[in-house]
Amino acid sequence: MTQPESVNPAAVAAPAPLDVPSLVVGVLGGTGDQGRGLAYRLAKAGQQVVIGSRTAERAEAAAAELGLGVRGADNAACARESDIVIVAVPWDGHAATLEALREELAGKIVVDCVNPLGFDKQGAYALKPEEGSAAQQAAALLPDSRVTAAFHHLSAVLLQDAAIDEIDTDVMVLGDDRAATDAVQALAARIPGMRGIYAGRLRNAHQVESLVANLISVNRRYKAHAGLRITDV
Amino acid sequence: MTQPESVNPAAVAAPAPLDVPSLVVGVLGGTGDQGRGLAYRLAKAGQQVVIGSRTAERAEAAAAELGLGVRGADNAACARESDIVIVAVPWDGHAATLEALREELAGKIVVDCVNPLGFDKQGAYALKPEEGSAAQQAAALLPDSRVTAAFHHLSAVLLQDAAIDEIDTDVMVLGDDRAATDAVQALAARIPGMRGIYAGRLRNAHQVESLVANLISVNRRYKAHAGLRITDV
Repeated sequence: MTQPESVNPAAVAAPAPLDVPSLVVGVLGGTGDQGRGLAYRLAKAGQQVVIGSRTAERAEAAAAELGLGVRGADNAACARESDIVIVAVPWDGHAATLEALREELAGKIVVDCVNPLGFDKQGAYALKPEEGSAAQQAAALLPDSRVTAAFHHLSAVLLQDAAIDEIDTDVMVLGDDRAATDAVQALAARIPGMRGIYAGRLRNAHQVESLVANLISVNRRYKAHAGLRITDV
Repeated sequence: MTQPESVNPAAVAAPAPLDVPSLVVGVLGGTGDQGRGLAYRLAKAGQQVVIGSRTAERAEAAAAELGLGVRGADNAACARESDIVIVAVPWDGHAATLEALREELAGKIVVDCVNPLGFDKQGAYALKPEEGSAAQQAAALLPDSRVTAAFHHLSAVLLQDAAIDEIDTDVMVLGDDRAATDAVQALAARIPGMRGIYAGRLRNAHQVESLVANLISVNRRYKAHAGLRITDV
């Protein structure tokens, strides 16, 4: 599945790109601010979305609030019914949630958007997971899934604000599986204003996750909802 | 010198902001691509610039090539003659260079722009300095200097290209000394196209330094000279 960048591309049969608009997107932790914001934007863009939560009732309530055809289910059913599964759970519950869903997530494209951060009176700071990053922890726990990392730098406030039509941010997409990162880039591009930009392998996910600590400092200093654009691309 | 953000600003006498255009900027490692590019842009913007190198001869030769009133000196003289000193040496020589300049750099604003990276056949990856980041290593080695971190995400190719008038990038400025980060932000803003954006304390420098590994992946995939813009600021 993993394809080193040094392989001659002509020597590898390119798989047909996935038809992303037809895929079902699950959002684990879809009742949190970030997950709900992403679910809203993707559903608004025409994607089929299933929100996952620990209990089906909470997920269904959040889905009903969002409308737009969003469904709710417990995490296991959400993972089973989805083709692409966004992991938007708190860092605290990250390992336990994924470990319990190993079978349901087998073969799926998993998109980790979790930012392991600590907070004290000086603000936010990066936590370093033993595996290197949240995304690498996901890859270690889900050996049969196609793990990518993306959607770290989005403002949950802007995502959830129905008065905002375009999200002025690029999405850095990381992963070692080209077809999977291509699909996640295409998914990000469905949201008006967003682009999905390939930004390296999973081993370089830690700094992308941690950069949220810096964006929190930016937001505090400038009273902003900061995002990132990549120039010259 | 360090002023916690939680202190009531009204209770602290605000120092007069530094008159940045009148300050002399030194560039340690000014004969390397990144250092030379920064020296060129700052001199072009009207700043007095001194390039530092291990030997005065090499520094003077590089300065003569740049023109624009840029001077060259050995590292110690460069540090002594400058008010703001940009550290653009290779990560390999970072600790040794700074340790040797502790006295010359006392009281100065030091701007670390070094990215500790390793390279293998899969590309670049982040190295984690024992102190947390290159900038924190600088702060540990230079207890009497005002250490900041900035200018990490600039393309040396674009900086050095005389045909390009504007550099389409924001500069994340980090540090625990507000007057120092304000001065570095003002310095960045002297270069057309650039803004200096405060992006947190030194303890959050590692991810900003490491993100260059991701920009290298972007450059490789898109044949670009990628930079970053912060949106909503």
